[in-house]
Amino acid sequence: MATDISYEALNILNADYAGCIDDDLLEQWPSFFTEKCLYKITTVENYRGGMLAGLVYADSQRMLSDRVTALREANVYERQRYRHVIGMPRITGRDDQGVQADTPFLVARIMRGGRTDLFASGKYVDRVTVNAAGELKLAQRIVVCDSDSFDTLVAIPF
Amino acid sequence: MATDISYEALNILNADYAGCIDDDLLEQWPSFFTEKCLYKITTVENYRGGMLAGLVYADSQRMLSDRVTALREANVYERQRYRHVIGMPRITGRDDQGVQADTPFLVARIMRGGRTDLFASGKYVDRVTVNAAGELKLAQRIVVCDSDSFDTLVAIPF
Amino acid sequence: MATDISYEALNILNADYAGCIDDDLLEQWPSFFTEKCLYKITTVENYRGGMLAGLVYADSQRMLSDRVTALREANVYERQRYRHVIGMPRITGRDDQGVQADTPFLVARIMRGGRTDLFASGKYVDRVTVNAAGELKLAQRIVVCDSDSFDTLVAIPF
Repeated sequence: MATDISYEALNILNADYAGCIDDDLLEQWPSFFTEKCLYKITTVENYRGGMLAGLVYADSQRMLSDRVTALREANVYERQRYRHVIGMPRITGRDDQGVQADTPFLVARIMRGGRTDLFASGKYVDRVTVNAAGELKLAQRIVVCDSDSFDTLVAIPF
Repeated sequence: MATDISYEALNILNADYAGCIDDDLLEQWPSFFTEKCLYKITTVENYRGGMLAGLVYADSQRMLSDRVTALREANVYERQRYRHVIGMPRITGRDDQGVQADTPFLVARIMRGGRTDLFASGKYVDRVTVNAAGELKLAQRIVVCDSDSFDTLVAIPF
Repeated sequence: MATDISYEALNILNADYAGCIDDDLLEQWPSFFTEKCLYKITTVENYRGGMLAGLVYADSQRMLSDRVTALREANVYERQRYRHVIGMPRITGRDDQGVQADTPFLVARIMRGGRTDLFASGKYVDRVTVNAAGELKLAQRIVVCDSDSFDTLVAIPF
């Protein structure tokens, strides 16, 4: 029996997720995930090669919270601003526990001086499940970045 | 009792709005708003600071129409082309009169010579209501631009 | 009697379409179209002028397949990577056979060295129909690019 997670519910989840990051509500960010989860930032090359290592890796809400703390302490997030635009998901699988989906994104970066550029593009490789309260949660979000040049990528949540 | 404005209806409204601007149907643009409305272009800094002043301000369909007339007379809109891509809304409130939503956007600019760049990013802070005919209208659209450098921003509708 | 093609179904079609191209599954790309179809890449100037000529033209799945073969032989697609983000459709017509819609898109290009830029923007002018199996197919997709500088545009599917 397949779950009844709707396409619209996935879109709402992603819209809320993007808003949370871009409105600098990072402390709420871990709550988009299941308690045990897989969050990883990686590149297309790594992802296709099946390498386990990503540039950022977390397997629990707690690790995600630690990451937010580290970002706050480093003040990294304040030096520039980001804007995520998340496209619509391509459903790649569905079972009785949840949905798999690939979802494209673009991230604009706005520098202190005001200049805007296209900072990153890629896709989320997600597994979405429903918790006891009926809320959608990310059991997995692998952030597959199109670019391999990664200096600053790791500094922000995707 | 909350309104029954659907998520899909908001998306359709935004898709029509973007198409209206990018297809240069500016004369239709005011009809997306309620007769009395709040339309403002501002920046994140201004918006967070609660400043009332925006770079563009209108509180009625009529003021929006005047703005279109001014743009037509200045011929500003013809020198380059713009493409709006509007993301999906994050619903931030809902009551018996309408819906509040934050919606991210990117605007590409295409110069006469053909070069395309990322012109602007930001979010719409909207209040959407339903008129007597059952049509969705913007009672408020505050255009919060991520960048503070604003020379040319004001020349086009967002 | 108008078709019952839903707004959501159009979004799913576009999400699958973008994923197909960006995941380099080009051989599946023709299957998004009806057997006889109209696929064309053109520019705003050409499209408004009503010129028949586009930079790329195909009127059947078979011609689209030939195009994929040519792209594979030229290895063009491997030198850089692209990311399509497709916005939401503006429905412009609906009859008993299908739906007309204009849909904006942005395409990011990721160069070998890792640099990302905004490669192209534009809109799809689509006619979508339903086949005997109940699947949505593109009877027409005219890719109207905003920019007139077109050197490399033609090398990839849009």
